[in-house]
Amino acid sequence: MKQYDIYLDNAATTPVRDEVLDAMMPYYKEMFGNPSSIHQYGREAKNAIENARERCAEILSCGSEEIIFTSGGTESDYLAISGVVGSGKIDQLIVSQVEHPAVLQAAEQLMKTGLSVKFASVNKDALCSKDEIDKHLTANSLCSVIYANNEVGTINPIRAMADTVHKTKSYIHTDACQAAGYLDLNVNNLCVDLMSVNGSKIYGPKGVGLLYIKDGTPFSSSNIGGGQERGLRGGTENVAAIVGLAKALELCELEKNESTRQISKLRDLLINGLVELGGIALLGSKTDRLPNNVSVLIYGVDTQALLMKLDELGIYCSVASACSAEKTEPSHVLLAMGIGYEQSFQSLRFSLGRETTESDVDDTIKMIKKTLKKG
Amino acid sequence: MKQYDIYLDNAATTPVRDEVLDAMMPYYKEMFGNPSSIHQYGREAKNAIENARERCAEILSCGSEEIIFTSGGTESDYLAISGVVGSGKIDQLIVSQVEHPAVLQAAEQLMKTGLSVKFASVNKDALCSKDEIDKHLTANSLCSVIYANNEVGTINPIRAMADTVHKTKSYIHTDACQAAGYLDLNVNNLCVDLMSVNGSKIYGPKGVGLLYIKDGTPFSSSNIGGGQERGLRGGTENVAAIVGLAKALELCELEKNESTRQISKLRDLLINGLVELGGIALLGSKTDRLPNNVSVLIYGVDTQALLMKLDELGIYCSVASACSAEKTEPSHVLLAMGIGYEQSFQSLRFSLGRETTESDVDDTIKMIKKTLKKG
Repeated sequence: MKQYDIYLDNAATTPVRDEVLDAMMPYYKEMFGNPSSIHQYGREAKNAIENARERCAEILSCGSEEIIFTSGGTESDYLAISGVVGSGKIDQLIVSQVEHPAVLQAAEQLMKTGLSVKFASVNKDALCSKDEIDKHLTANSLCSVIYANNEVGTINPIRAMADTVHKTKSYIHTDACQAAGYLDLNVNNLCVDLMSVNGSKIYGPKGVGLLYIKDGTPFSSSNIGGGQERGLRGGTENVAAIVGLAKALELCELEKNESTRQISKLRDLLINGLVELGGIALLGSKTDRLPNNVSVLIYGVDTQALLMKLDELGIYCSVASACSAEKTEPSHVLLAMGIGYEQSFQSLRFSLGRETTESDVDDTIKMIKKTLKKG
Repeated sequence: MKQYDIYLDNAATTPVRDEVLDAMMPYYKEMFGNPSSIHQYGREAKNAIENARERCAEILSCGSEEIIFTSGGTESDYLAISGVVGSGKIDQLIVSQVEHPAVLQAAEQLMKTGLSVKFASVNKDALCSKDEIDKHLTANSLCSVIYANNEVGTINPIRAMADTVHKTKSYIHTDACQAAGYLDLNVNNLCVDLMSVNGSKIYGPKGVGLLYIKDGTPFSSSNIGGGQERGLRGGTENVAAIVGLAKALELCELEKNESTRQISKLRDLLINGLVELGGIALLGSKTDRLPNNVSVLIYGVDTQALLMKLDELGIYCSVASACSAEKTEPSHVLLAMGIGYEQSFQSLRFSLGRETTESDVDDTIKMIKKTLKKG
């Protein structure tokens, strides 16, 4: 019998909100048409995705034609990088060492085709600096830096990087999958050329994401199919999920200030409570940090085993990121931060969400204390 | 005020069935975990997709490890072709002239990289023969032929082609997106090496598909991300949609014989009723034909305008395929069948479904008669 039901893995994925699911429902059975059909059912579906596109564009402060819907964050990241490089106008790719696997693997794949790829290093907090980007920058570069890191929650200075990047004839993409819901997504403020967002981290559905591509960005997609999404992303549009993404994005944008205030308070309670237990250190930046991320190093503790014990109690968190949970390899993010191989297996990530309560935090601290004592 | 509500565009997309949506619902808000998470929520999600995979594998008579879930038919087609060619063990690609754009565009893209691509021609019924494949076949070929054509419903002799293909050291892929629900999907009977199926044509959700890859088929995916789907298709799995696909596939397999019997009866009623009006000819094979496809040529009539008139009445059909509805180019399928440029704009496709009734068919014939008379 589980004692608790405390979900602290919101960075892996979030439940779909009632309002989002309600918005999606009519598009399964009633307005179920294929947006490419020109009859009423098709037009309804087409209108739904164009309306969703406009609402997303409003939040990002961009033109609706600058938004492409995809099947998720991974596809958005890959499409961004392969699309800009595929234009043939890019001589160099710069990615930070702490990118999501979608970006890193795209970089590695392009390296094999002969593209020059530079890996920008990060400091001990996983922070990539403007100067580090500057160091590698040459004209016609594409730079991809994660807005807020998915493992340790460190927020990168994207605007400063964008300003530097644009001084040369270069472009910048940012993966905002973890940032959405907490940080500013206004692309004019950020000055990015491309940005990825996905649904499943912001209380929207899985299987949907968006890519912002600033008008004028060199882009050539090898994506194949029926010419949907301005020929950049083929395949029948996932209407219900696109409607859900727009609704989720709207809601989290609306509640951003309040949830940032509330969740970062709980985050700090959890950080302080854990650090006070002793033998536990915060990973990532103290100040430039996502409101919902608590990543810690628990010295000398096999956190995989600890995670399983917490799971038995009904407290759900992760080691490093969910995306690499099945692997026995060390986290590339922790290694890039200068953490040793052995210690890289001693990390634990709690990612809070809109349903997290103060008693969840108290119970989590209490149970970790108890579990570590028993050891 | 619409007089009718007769949806005859099931080849474009189908509504989601109640049973399918019911099966999906628990995975949005309750069992919402990321399948890569190792705690309870993650395991629940993982179990759901593995269970779905086993149920799909049972229908296809293959191993569950031979099934990869994707974001739809277009992605499955592209992944199949790029994956096998990407293995480096293929010297030639053979595709029929009447493939879905996903396959044709993949072929064109690979041609640009220097791969030898042959386009197998079809007869006046859009049928591609075993002999036509044989003509182009050399060792280490990948052959891709659509199981049943999406525009005119002609069924290709996939098994005979597979037998020929396998006599050389070659492989065969088939796009079964339109075939699913009506034709045999047993891969042992078909003897195919790869097969694409999607959800949105079989009363399942949009945004999900599967690709069968026979064990031992040379395959190297450039798909990027967190290593999901055995490293062949990255990105957080779309759990609810995958569960929905499995349920939809199960139901349509269960009801296949009955719906084939019932729908082909309605199909023949519609064909006969239309042909009797005069000046209308059936497109595609009379005998090797999908039970739900009625494609016709209406001599001298601008069918785009007719379609709009039918739409006003509440009868929904399409010209050629939905995927090319927005384009003003002629249908590549009709051109390949030897139909002239001008006549290629005189076609109309009705695709029946499980909700089509005899009175729908009668009303459609009546309204077309009336509209053509006025015309």
